[in-house]
Parts: sequence; C-alpha cells; structure tokens
Amino acid sequence: MDRPVGIIMGSQSDWPTMREAATILDELGVGYEARIVSAHRTPDRLWDYGRTAVQRGLKVIIAGAGGAAHLPGMMASKTRVPVIGVPVQTRALSGVDSLYSIVQMPRGFPVATMAIGAAGAANAGLMAAAILAVSDPALAERLDAWRAALSDSIPEAPEEPLA
Amino acid sequence: MDRPVGIIMGSQSDWPTMREAATILDELGVGYEARIVSAHRTPDRLWDYGRTAVQRGLKVIIAGAGGAAHLPGMMASKTRVPVIGVPVQTRALSGVDSLYSIVQMPRGFPVATMAIGAAGAANAGLMAAAILAVSDPALAERLDAWRAALSDSIPEAPEEPLA
Amino acid sequence: MDRPVGIIMGSQSDWPTMREAATILDELGVGYEARIVSAHRTPDRLWDYGRTAVQRGLKVIIAGAGGAAHLPGMMASKTRVPVIGVPVQTRALSGVDSLYSIVQMPRGFPVATMAIGAAGAANAGLMAAAILAVSDPALAERLDAWRAALSDSIPEAPEEPLA
Amino acid sequence: MDRPVGIIMGSQSDWPTMREAATILDELGVGYEARIVSAHRTPDRLWDYGRTAVQRGLKVIIAGAGGAAHLPGMMASKTRVPVIGVPVQTRALSGVDSLYSIVQMPRGFPVATMAIGAAGAANAGLMAAAILAVSDPALAERLDAWRAALSDSIPEAPEEPLA
Amino acid sequence: MDRPVGIIMGSQSDWPTMREAATILDELGVGYEARIVSAHRTPDRLWDYGRTAVQRGLKVIIAGAGGAAHLPGMMASKTRVPVIGVPVQTRALSGVDSLYSIVQMPRGFPVATMAIGAAGAANAGLMAAAILAVSDPALAERLDAWRAALSDSIPEAPEEPLA
Amino acid sequence: MDRPVGIIMGSQSDWPTMREAATILDELGVGYEARIVSAHRTPDRLWDYGRTAVQRGLKVIIAGAGGAAHLPGMMASKTRVPVIGVPVQTRALSGVDSLYSIVQMPRGFPVATMAIGAAGAANAGLMAAAILAVSDPALAERLDAWRAALSDSIPEAPEEPLA
Amino acid sequence: MDRPVGIIMGSQSDWPTMREAATILDELGVGYEARIVSAHRTPDRLWDYGRTAVQRGLKVIIAGAGGAAHLPGMMASKTRVPVIGVPVQTRALSGVDSLYSIVQMPRGFPVATMAIGAAGAANAGLMAAAILAVSDPALAERLDAWRAALSDSIPEAPEEPLA
Amino acid sequence: MDRPVGIIMGSQSDWPTMREAATILDELGVGYEARIVSAHRTPDRLWDYGRTAVQRGLKVIIAGAGGAAHLPGMMASKTRVPVIGVPVQTRALSGVDSLYSIVQMPRGFPVATMAIGAAGAANAGLMAAAILAVSDPALAERLDAWRAALSDSIPEAPEEPLA
Repeated sequence: MDRPVGIIMGSQSDWPTMREAATILDELGVGYEARIVSAHRTPDRLWDYGRTAVQRGLKVIIAGAGGAAHLPGMMASKTRVPVIGVPVQTRALSGVDSLYSIVQMPRGFPVATMAIGAAGAANAGLMAAAILAVSDPALAERLDAWRAALSDSIPEAPEEPLA
Repeated sequence: MDRPVGIIMGSQSDWPTMREAATILDELGVGYEARIVSAHRTPDRLWDYGRTAVQRGLKVIIAGAGGAAHLPGMMASKTRVPVIGVPVQTRALSGVDSLYSIVQMPRGFPVATMAIGAAGAANAGLMAAAILAVSDPALAERLDAWRAALSDSIPEAPEEPLA
Repeated sequence: MDRPVGIIMGSQSDWPTMREAATILDELGVGYEARIVSAHRTPDRLWDYGRTAVQRGLKVIIAGAGGAAHLPGMMASKTRVPVIGVPVQTRALSGVDSLYSIVQMPRGFPVATMAIGAAGAANAGLMAAAILAVSDPALAERLDAWRAALSDSIPEAPEEPLA
Repeated sequence: MDRPVGIIMGSQSDWPTMREAATILDELGVGYEARIVSAHRTPDRLWDYGRTAVQRGLKVIIAGAGGAAHLPGMMASKTRVPVIGVPVQTRALSGVDSLYSIVQMPRGFPVATMAIGAAGAANAGLMAAAILAVSDPALAERLDAWRAALSDSIPEAPEEPLA
Repeated sequence: MDRPVGIIMGSQSDWPTMREAATILDELGVGYEARIVSAHRTPDRLWDYGRTAVQRGLKVIIAGAGGAAHLPGMMASKTRVPVIGVPVQTRALSGVDSLYSIVQMPRGFPVATMAIGAAGAANAGLMAAAILAVSDPALAERLDAWRAALSDSIPEAPEEPLA
Repeated sequence: MDRPVGIIMGSQSDWPTMREAATILDELGVGYEARIVSAHRTPDRLWDYGRTAVQRGLKVIIAGAGGAAHLPGMMASKTRVPVIGVPVQTRALSGVDSLYSIVQMPRGFPVATMAIGAAGAANAGLMAAAILAVSDPALAERLDAWRAALSDSIPEAPEEPLA
Repeated sequence: MDRPVGIIMGSQSDWPTMREAATILDELGVGYEARIVSAHRTPDRLWDYGRTAVQRGLKVIIAGAGGAAHLPGMMASKTRVPVIGVPVQTRALSGVDSLYSIVQMPRGFPVATMAIGAAGAANAGLMAAAILAVSDPALAERLDAWRAALSDSIPEAPEEPLA
Repeated sequence: MDRPVGIIMGSQSDWPTMREAATILDELGVGYEARIVSAHRTPDRLWDYGRTAVQRGLKVIIAGAGGAAHLPGMMASKTRVPVIGVPVQTRALSGVDSLYSIVQMPRGFPVATMAIGAAGAANAGLMAAAILAVSDPALAERLDAWRAALSDSIPEAPEEPLA
C-alpha cells in the first residue's frame, strides 16, 4: 500500500491526539506512516525525515506538537512537502503556546495550522486528503462522500425536542 | 493562462495584506484570480464561489479576513478545494480575533491557517504553491529554487559587525 | 401556539447550554422552536433558515455555537431578524474563541452577544423576551414580574451569618 | 419627532465612537437622543434614566463605555428596555477590559454586546433598528434596503486587479 | 461590638470565597457585617448601602463579585468609604473578567483590588485591618503580631529534605 | 507640613504616570513625599523605607512600577502601612505584566491595586485620601467636595448634540 | 559533599514542582540544598540568602514561585550568582502571572526563566548543570551522556503502530 | 581576543534589539561574536553552529528571535552550551508569541528566557557574564562593579521634586 502521508509527533504522549488524523485517513483510504520525531530530543531524525521526504514519496506531512512546538516549523524548513501543524493541548497554557509556536511562522516557511487538540488532528487528516485529492479524482470522490455523510448525519432538532 | 488559485478577501481593506500572496504566486509563476467575497455582505457570492470552485478549475483557495473572520471557514464548508486562511490584523485585538475565528474550525472542515498579517499572506502563496507542486514537478523545482534563493540571501553576520 | 423565537445551535452538544434559553422562554410564556443548524455541516439549512425567517414569522433568533462559531454571524448576514449570539464554552480556549468569533462582527451585521456558557444562554432568552416586549405589553408585564421575583429572592446575608 | 432610542455613554470622550450609532440611526430614519450618563460620576442620573426609560417611551438603549464599563450592565439592571452595549477601545487593554465588563453579565440581566470600537457602535445602531423593526414594517423595509445597498456596494475584485 | 467593616458580595455563591475575609477579621478582632448586595439584582439595596455607609459607621467596605463584577465599582461611586474589591474566580474566564471589571476603574473612583479568589479575600481582610490600624494603635499591634506569626511559621526547608 | 503619604516608584520614567497621584493629593491638601525606590536596583533603600515607614509617620504608601513590578509587593512585605500599587503601562505587554505582578499577591501581604497607567495613579491619590479620611473629618469633607465637583462637571449630552 | 546549587522556593506547596529540579541534579551528581525562602513572609531570610550566596559557595540559584512571584527577581537583585526562575502553575491564571512576574525583569537584573510547572523545574536543574559544566569537564561529560540517553530513549513510532 | 559568547539571531531585523546584549558585553569586557543564524532559512547553519559550539570554545550562546521563535530552542537541542533566549517584540502579538515559543521548552532542553525586547537583550548580556563569572573571578569583580554603579546611579527623588 502506498503511504503518501507522514504523521509525525514530538512524543508518545501526543498519540491520543494525533491518532484522530490516522482514523480519518483510514476512513478515506489514504495510506500513511506514524512516527515519533522529536525536534529537540531527536533533531537528527527530524533532519533526515525532512531531507528524504520527497525521495521517499511523502506528499503531505502532518506534524503534531505541544508547548514550544518546533516540530512542524522545523519540518517546513527542511522540505517543500506541505506541512500541516496540529497544536497539542498543554497543561498550563491550554495549547495557546503550541498554537502560537506553530502558526506564527516567518515569511518563507508556512505551516498549515489546525485547531488545538483532537478536532485539529482530525482536520489535519481531512486537509491532507483534500491536498492529495487535487490530483486524485478517486480520492476527491471519497472525500465528497465523507463530507456529504457528515452533513446527512445532523438531526433537525436537539434530542430533547422542547418545541 | 491557467488560474488554479483563487485569492478571496472580505473587503478592499484586506488587499494590502493579501497582495503579498499574489506577489509570491507571481514570483513562482502560478496563476490566480483575486476577488472580494464577503461572508456577511455578499453571502450569495460566497455560496456561488464555493459551489462552482471545482468545476471552475480552482485547485486552492486563499481566503483572508479580519475580526469575526468567517470567510475562510464558510468557504471550507462549501467546497472540498483546500482553503488556506489568512488572519488579517485588526485594530483592537491585533488579529487574535481573526486567528481564533479562522483556526478553531470544528471537526470536518479544516482551514490551513497562516500567521497573522502580511507574513501569513505571503506564506499562503507559498503553501498554495507547495500544494500544487505535489502534482506539478516543474512548479516543485521553481519552489525549491525560491527556497534556496531565500536561504542564500541571509548574510553571515548583522550589518554592523560588532565582533 | 405562536413561536416567535428560533433557538438554533451548531450541534447536539450545545443543547445542555442552550436549553437554558428554552427554560427562560418557558417561564415567560414565549413560544419557540429549537433546531440544529450547523454553519459548516449544514450550510444550506442555515441558508434556508435565514432566508425564510421573516416569512415564517420568526421575530428573534438565538444562535449558540462554540470555537470558530460562525452560526450567529452568518445568520445575521442572511436575515434582518435580530440575532442573539451565545458563545458556548470550549475545551482548550474556554470559549474565548467562541466569544471573539461571535462578537467581533464587521459593520453592517450585528450579533447581540451574551456571556460565555449557560448564563449567557439564559440571558439570551431574557433578551429575546425583552425585544418582543417592546411591542407586547402583556409580555412586558410578565418580564417585569420575572425580574422582580429574581430581586426578591436575594437574601440579606450569606447563609452562615458570621456577623 | 419620536425618539425611541437612547444613546448614552460614560463620558464625552466616548462620543467619537458612539456617534457611529447616531449616524446609522439617522440613515435609517430612527429618532434618538444622545446623553452622557456616567455610572460612577453620575450614578443618580443613571438611576433616573433607567427608572424612567419605559415611561419616557424609550424602546431601546445603546450604552457605550470603556474600562470597567459598568454603564450598560447597570442600565440593564434598572430597566427592562433592551440594552445594547458598546465596548469602547481603551489605551492599555485595547477594550478587552470593556468587552469583559459588558458581556459577562450574570443570569437575569443581559446586555446585547457589540464589537469593540466604532464598528460595534455602528452595529449598535443597526441592532436597535432591527429590534424596532420587529413591530415597525416600514422601518423593516428601510433596514432591508440599507442592507441590500451595503451588499451592492461591494466590488467584484480588489482595486489593483492583479489577476 | 463595633462593626467598622462591611463585607458585601453579589451572591450566596461568593461566600465560600469571601468568608476568608471574615476569618481574617475574626483573627484580628475586627468587627464586621456580611451582606448580600447584588449590583444587578438588588440595585436599590446597593444604593442604600452606599448612601448610608458613612452614617452607619462603616469605615471600610470589602466587596466581592465575579464576571461583570460591578458591585465594588458601583459602591465606590456611592460612598467615599474605601472599597476593597475581590475578584471571584469564574468558570470560563477564571476571574480575569472579574479582575478587569474591578480594577480598571476610571479616574475618580478607585477600588483597592486584591488577587483573584480566596487569597485575595483573605488579603482584603488584612488590608481592611491595615486601613483601620492607621488610627487604631491597638489594632496596629495585633496586625504586627499576626504578620510576625506568619513569618515565624515558615520552615527552613521543604518537608522532604532532599539535601 | 505633614507628609503622611509616600509616593515611591521604580524609576524616573514612572514619574509622568505617578505625578497624577501627586496632583490629586495637592488638590486635596494632603502632604506627601515622592521618592525613587527601585526594588531591584536599590533593594537596601526599599528595605530602609519599609522598615522606617511607621516611625517616620507614613500613613499610606503609593508604589508604582512596571514589568516585573516587585516594588509594591516587597514594600507590603516590609511594613504594615497600607500599600497602594499602580501598574505602569509597559511597551510589549501594555501593563498586563505590571498588573499581574502587583495584584496577585499571596495570602498575608495585600497590595491595593489600581488601574493600569495614569488613571490608576490618580486613583491611588484618591484612595490614599479616602484611607486618611477614615480618621480625618476635615479631609473627608474635602474628599466629598472633590467627588461632588467631579459629578457636577459632567454635561448632560455630548458636545455635538445630534439629538 | 559540595553543594553549588541552591534550590529555593516560596512555600512548601511549591516543593512538588521544585523537586523535579532536585531529581535532575541527583541524576547528574550535582550537590544542592533545598530551602524555603519566601520573598514576602521571610524577606530577611531572602536578604541573608542573597547577601551570603557567594561566600557560601553557591554557584547557581534555582528559585521557584507562583502568582506575584517576586522571589527569583529579588534574589537576582541581591547577588550576582545566576538565578534560574521557575514559574509555578497557579489556580486562576495557570501560571501566566508567575511567568510574567519572573521573566519581565528590568535591565540590570536577569532571571533565567524556565517553562511553567514541573517541566520548567526539571529544566532548571539541567540549566544549572549546564552552567556549572562550563568550568567542570567531568560534569559536562555526564550532561552529554544524560542528553544522549534521553535521545536514545525515543521509540521510532507511537505505541499502537497504525501504519 | 577570546570570544566565549555567541550572539545569534534569526534575521538582520533582530539586530537593533540584540545589539543591547553586545553593548553590555563590551562594557563588561567579554568577547563575543554576532551571527545571523536562521532556524528556518539556514537550518544547516544552525546545525553546524550547534554541533561545533563546544569545540569552537563557545561558553554561552545568546539567541534572539521573534514570532515562532525556534532558534533558541533548536540551538539548545544541538549543544549543551547554555542558551539564553531573547523574545523579540512582534507586530501583531507584541512578542507573546516569541515568549511562549522560547520559554515553553519541554523537559530536557532548557532555554534561559529573558524579558521581551531590548531590556531582555541587555539582560542576556548580563546573564552571560554572570555565567562566565562563576569561574572567572576577575569578571565577577567587573560584574559586581557594574551592578554597584547601576545602583549608585539612581537618584533619591524624581526630577520634578514635587515634595
């Protein structure tokens, strides 16, 4: 199976958040790999991952990190492969630190930043699919169907219909 | 000329920010159109733009807005074309309102959020190019060259070399 | 029974907050309907709701949403019926995201924003009643009585009278 | 001329902001009075204004204030007439203090809070008109026309059409 | 017993916080009364309390409130008796709303603002005592002793002496 | 002339803010001294000032500082004389740093915190006077007159009477 | 055993956080003492600690505090020994108050500020070791080994290898 | 001349801030080099700088950056040489983004964070000197003298001695 998406995260503790991205990609039939790549603890692994991303066939990278979340931005520095950043929620600052560290990138190195936490991770999976769908009509159809199913699942009224 | 990128913005006052995206696309040889589409003042225009995006051949949409910046998120609701959001800086809240309104999208509808202001707009252009480069090797080469030139432009030391 | 108030919300999970509005309207004898209208997942439902609001006899709309809370503002764009916005509390940002997304509307499309969470939802019910009471003397009297009863319910001293 | 709207503000320095509300009401043909009512410096004036609001024929009150902005909330405590609050921008905290002081009202006393600053003041005028339009079909028509004209004024593309 | 201090609060739910002030005053032998005075629900009670504060012999007023916490500032508007404000912690905004609403008073009407929550309430008791001690040498001595005892209670090292 | 009030500040640059306190005390006929006492640059001066405050006859201390504003809190640690803190506005954080550093004092050592900036400094003068007025009937009368004059100075309507 | 590091904290309640620093120093074989030194409750202890730090052979001081966290900055004022500050997480403001009070020191008196909470305390231990390692080659080697071991401990992929 | 300190910054635009560090080091007779090392634009330069820091004889590194300020943290990942971080003030977020990105480092990789802006840069120079002074008695004396001179420069009273 082809694995065009790399899901990377700073530590094992980010996985409960980042697996939401994996779940979405499973639902959409998009292959991926999941790796721990710590900007600070394994900088050489980050370097290698970025340097070889294109030749390894990665088309999109999803990077999740919390606090001084340098992983997404450093990956964006190392490869032209589009990087989607997921700010992981943190204890003291609720992920505002993660968000600012990921989104406020300087001119030249964009990170496609998602919402803080699990919803952001799920959306990272959807954004990765949308990017791939630009040149993959079959995936585009699956994505359209996924979106339509989501819309169809919304009931008309809240469950205790007071009115 | 092919125009795979749509740059949309909530009002004329967003243009000084958003033209940074246009400049980058010009530098990279990527065609685009620039349109004013206000989520609140021209909701039907937003609807039509989103509904026809795929059939009109748009591959990426860059949407800039400030304050209660609904344009990027609503566009993401209307089309599967990837939407890149640029939070325009605001007077009272400096763009934190724009940032939160754009980035905190619910599960299902990602917006690839950039930094607040002009740097974010320039990066939106680069992210659009990176997305197109996934399936356009010539553009990928131009993007690599652009990135290399940026790196090469950095001097070794600050201009008043005190040491 | 007449239903001049529409209570709408982005998802079922907003109902525990928004039912506070319904409870107040029940107490004041004001009819309402409660509906799920998601700006992002059911944009066409939003469109229809806004487009038909006047002809369906809606006099006030209460809209609750969390995160990138686009529902109140988009509804305000689609109808001149006064829209009252309730920022639902969120996990990472405690509803500051919801508040900014709802209150920071651009010139032309006001949303009457309430406090974050359940107190705000209850107050949305009261504000809807106050708006209707402008032209409904009987409701004005009931509202006056409700307010007087609230005032009368306040004890003179805290329950463990230390002094 | 009938004056159903009272525009009140904490000090003369709020007038450059609050006159935006007056301008909108002028455009819509809605009568109003403009008064300085300081919650802290003229509390008795506030008391009298609130106590007599209904009998003087006020249908909506627009209250602007900055900092520890108590005027809108105290007015909401004194009268059932709907109170629209405008957070005036402040020097140190940019109006976040004004916003929190106005919007975070406890259960029982809603203030319909607008955006910080001049856009919020203009929207206060529009919200006042929308409230009055609930029972004034002629005003409703004028409001619809005002909104349509605003939408029609938006050009298709930004003024330096790069594409 | 003389009661120079009035402890007032917006609602019964503030008492668990505000009783810290009462405890301190008990420890220092300072008389007080504790009352519920809601700025919004019982504005006339607030008026009367402020208007009669001097004649009733109140020397210091401690006022606690949360959210759009208008009680301390409105009391400061109604009487020259020094008002000490305690921002009660809130659910969504953690008391930042309370703090801003209390501390950001305009020129003319100071509120002596304490820390958010229970520590602030205890300190309100100490500040009240310090104010009274300006003209009460016996109380000044008791306050000095209280402070000395607090200092003496601090151990040299943390309880699990690792070093 | 008696000087019951000490106005201290961390540096000369705080004086444009803190002179507002001096001006108010002049208007109210309250004597004071103004001194530079830097918590960090002259800690021994701070120590001596605090240690001798009571014996030198100081009844109230007004302390202004910006950034990591330790002066008010350290003074409160060194003397039982009531300390009023003024958060001076700062460049990067607008005085929020000053505010948090001053107001968030731990149990045992209150600082009577005022608003950020010049309005806070003026209010520090008024709070000092109110504290002294507790045992000085003549000053109490002058304070009442000052407050009455402030109230009387408020015009009925804003200067460009639109209505 | 030599004790070049002093770990000080404002109260016993800071110890669960600050012991992370002690644990790191134990792992690296660096001697330390742990003391409670409250800026506000034991200012003279702080004075003595700072005044005698050099002569007692302290090379680095780690100071943890929460809220209006004056301990690190005041210690930096009293001694040239490098002071590392740890912002302890607080209840209402999550340690943002601690962070601002510690990091925003004026020109002349730096505090080497760490992250909020336990990670910051651990890092304070590492920073103390790095400072000592500048002139202690054996410690430098142990620190290098500690860092290498941390890097080696990172697995390649998250524990539920979905891909 | 020996150059134990490396001053690095993300771009030329950081130099007006970072030269404050250089000025202090000049005053204290501490050698340094100043280099531009961009985490994102010249990642390989960052890698080399960190990898060779020890062998090149660097004892302390001062790193300034703004926005998603990854330079200090990445340098701390690459070398055990103590890294002092200076958050450069930014346009939209005033340097709060820089501060969070620098200070919120994960366990294992401390950055000694200074205040936002020029004061922080000056303090970075002082902290570097204090670290070197741990094993350099002559520098320790110069640092003591610098500190004493700063203290002696503080006048007793503000320049317009009102009292």
